[in-house]
Amino acid sequence: MDWEQISEKLDAMLAAGRHSEMRGALRLLNAVDIAQYMSELDREKLLIVFRILPKDLGADVFSYLEPDKQAELLNAIGDSEIRGLIDSMFLDDAVDFLEELPAGVVRRVLQNTDADTRDLINQFLRYPENSAGSLMTIEYCEFHSPCTVRQAMEEIRRTGLDKETIYTLYVIDERRRLLGSLALRTLIIADDNRDVTELMTSNPVFVHTDDDQEVVADMVRKYDLLTIPVVDREERLVGIITADDVMDVIEEENTEDIEKMSGLLPSDEQYLKTPITTLFKNRIPWLLILMISATFTGLIITHFEGVLSSAGKIGVLLTAALPMLMDTGGNCGAQASTLVIRGLALGEVEFKDILRVWWREVRVAVMVGAVLCLVNVGRQLALYYFTSGISPETVRVTIIVSIAMFCTVIIAKSIGCTLPLLAKKIGLDPALMASPIITTLVDACSLTILFSIATFALG
Amino acid sequence: MDWEQISEKLDAMLAAGRHSEMRGALRLLNAVDIAQYMSELDREKLLIVFRILPKDLGADVFSYLEPDKQAELLNAIGDSEIRGLIDSMFLDDAVDFLEELPAGVVRRVLQNTDADTRDLINQFLRYPENSAGSLMTIEYCEFHSPCTVRQAMEEIRRTGLDKETIYTLYVIDERRRLLGSLALRTLIIADDNRDVTELMTSNPVFVHTDDDQEVVADMVRKYDLLTIPVVDREERLVGIITADDVMDVIEEENTEDIEKMSGLLPSDEQYLKTPITTLFKNRIPWLLILMISATFTGLIITHFEGVLSSAGKIGVLLTAALPMLMDTGGNCGAQASTLVIRGLALGEVEFKDILRVWWREVRVAVMVGAVLCLVNVGRQLALYYFTSGISPETVRVTIIVSIAMFCTVIIAKSIGCTLPLLAKKIGLDPALMASPIITTLVDACSLTILFSIATFALG
Repeated sequence: MDWEQISEKLDAMLAAGRHSEMRGALRLLNAVDIAQYMSELDREKLLIVFRILPKDLGADVFSYLEPDKQAELLNAIGDSEIRGLIDSMFLDDAVDFLEELPAGVVRRVLQNTDADTRDLINQFLRYPENSAGSLMTIEYCEFHSPCTVRQAMEEIRRTGLDKETIYTLYVIDERRRLLGSLALRTLIIADDNRDVTELMTSNPVFVHTDDDQEVVADMVRKYDLLTIPVVDREERLVGIITADDVMDVIEEENTEDIEKMSGLLPSDEQYLKTPITTLFKNRIPWLLILMISATFTGLIITHFEGVLSSAGKIGVLLTAALPMLMDTGGNCGAQASTLVIRGLALGEVEFKDILRVWWREVRVAVMVGAVLCLVNVGRQLALYYFTSGISPETVRVTIIVSIAMFCTVIIAKSIGCTLPLLAKKIGLDPALMASPIITTLVDACSLTILFSIATFALG
Repeated sequence: MDWEQISEKLDAMLAAGRHSEMRGALRLLNAVDIAQYMSELDREKLLIVFRILPKDLGADVFSYLEPDKQAELLNAIGDSEIRGLIDSMFLDDAVDFLEELPAGVVRRVLQNTDADTRDLINQFLRYPENSAGSLMTIEYCEFHSPCTVRQAMEEIRRTGLDKETIYTLYVIDERRRLLGSLALRTLIIADDNRDVTELMTSNPVFVHTDDDQEVVADMVRKYDLLTIPVVDREERLVGIITADDVMDVIEEENTEDIEKMSGLLPSDEQYLKTPITTLFKNRIPWLLILMISATFTGLIITHFEGVLSSAGKIGVLLTAALPMLMDTGGNCGAQASTLVIRGLALGEVEFKDILRVWWREVRVAVMVGAVLCLVNVGRQLALYYFTSGISPETVRVTIIVSIAMFCTVIIAKSIGCTLPLLAKKIGLDPALMASPIITTLVDACSLTILFSIATFALG
């Protein structure tokens, strides 16, 4: 049965008030899908469905709802319901949703949790946004060395259900410093009387609470981990981060990079939920910067005014070729910068490779330039043949433009590949050195090249 | 100790021939790091270090080496060593590295594996590239219903070490059809005599062998899974895919999207390892297409030739404003298309939202256009004040350009937001409708607008 049919049947049960049937139907569905279904209901129905939900599903579904729906629900339900909800959520989910809520609602939620949970939540809310601390959960299994396999298994059976993951276990010393990690599979097949320290992997990979989420994602991806431990400044184990949360971080970081590469201020809100004014604020800064920088291209054209106006017909033909030349240069530069920016993000390229990268790009540029140059000769001559006719003037323009294009391609690729590396070196985000900036810079270069060649050729 | 120091110490031990010491040192390191260290060694040293490696680490390190280093090693080692290597690798890792090797080396490897493994590997190599089948592993735990918790735990203890993951377990019927999934944690704390079918979650989320890896990544991310089961066309369970492999898929898909958005043919090779000719081949198609399309912008300028040349000074001033106008239009369009393309990729925007998206963009465009328009009046007047001086002509040009820019912004945002949605609707990749195409289209629009307004204003 596809989702639309399921959704219709749920609607019908809801409309008919067959609540216990609906509870049965919801039991068959995944928390993510239920949250999606609920996100399209109005406030009244939302509350009804939330109360119909089997209790053990409630917290899970709640943590998948969008922040606006969560706030709606929290405003509608009673204090004791809020308490139950927070108690049955994993701590990191609870912190995540509190971060998104308006301050008034957060206060009401915190008033309805017990003192211990409230302290923990407050502690989490103090970690900087997008740090490892703000991503981690404290619901993991740890053993104090020494500890036998039997003791460890008993501990897991006793507390495992409250833990977000029990598949990677951690061994700590008396000062809570991380000694090693241990896969549950190793524990399960090990002899009952062995000590966990003999079985563990020492020196596990870890991150610090104040590391950026980008560092976390890089480590998890590089070492193929399902969980990574988080330690504080004294190297004491304070939490873990699981792979499912890291996947969201990876998508978030990619979105940020893509947005920066298109001259947008990055935002982690969904497009359709972002207020128009926020969209405006994220777009206008780079548009203004780039528009003002483009003043230089205007100055270059004005500077060569004499060539343009005294050349008459040739001047107009040169002007007609400008957009093609600038766009080709911009596209060539963007291709090179994109590959280098992506290489930097994935750790495949470093600053020390700068000469190697540049030399690669120059060779590619010569090949690309040669092909574009040849095709352009054909393209321009064909164009003139069908419009103004082929004359000594149009042939000269074709040669001037083709040579200018070859030079532009070389310079565009050189700028495109070196700028992101230089940006990285001086601590800027390489993603800022993408298409928009490259286009503006390459425009100035291609105009100067075209007019210089034209001035030289036309005397 | 940081990585450079570690690397130096390893070099010293290697140079001094202290192999057993080196083996001890390598034991402390992670397979990923060892592979990275080995990737910088020459052929001879590579072989020495590979033979020094503790046997249990060998296969793991090998699977993290780059394909060229793997081929080097395989060419250097004996047949029995190859057999040992393949036997101790997880099947999906073995298939992955075989896919990258030259055919001759693959034949030699397959000759050195036992018949069963060879059959399995051959079967895997037949799944289309980037399909769920090519990503999956068959090393997972399954139970035939009925089966008690005790039987299941015994089975896991007996076979668990050979499985890539035992944290999600699957229950199948007599025809191997997937009945449900079961977390190991549930099994561990459950009563020994219960049946696994009572404990399992029925209707688990799954993918088909021929689903694209993008579908797999979307499902895993959406449902926060650590593993996802893979079924064949008869819905029989044939394998699983783990979260660490999905993370690599997510990065790969993002790289592809980013490359397409910059007018590149997508490639999954690392930048520094891609041959120059491949870089050339990936770049030239879009550059040619876009260059030839730009012929239209040339035609538009030629069409308005009369206005340009008869307007004298004003003609040159209008020409000088062209690059700024085209770049601003291109940037505005790219911003809108990027957000919509990303929204489509993350499933936040759909074709049915097209009118809503367009109306959002128009409102943003009016705000952006108004600000850019005002700033441009100031910018152009300041420019003229410091260069040619302010005259009735320069004021007229300023007004013409500013009005043209306002209109261009509205049209650029409209094109930018609707094209990716239309592409998706007709089955094209929305990422193709990004900056390069939008820029070319918007150029034509902005030129037409500028010259139409100029023709009207100058009579």
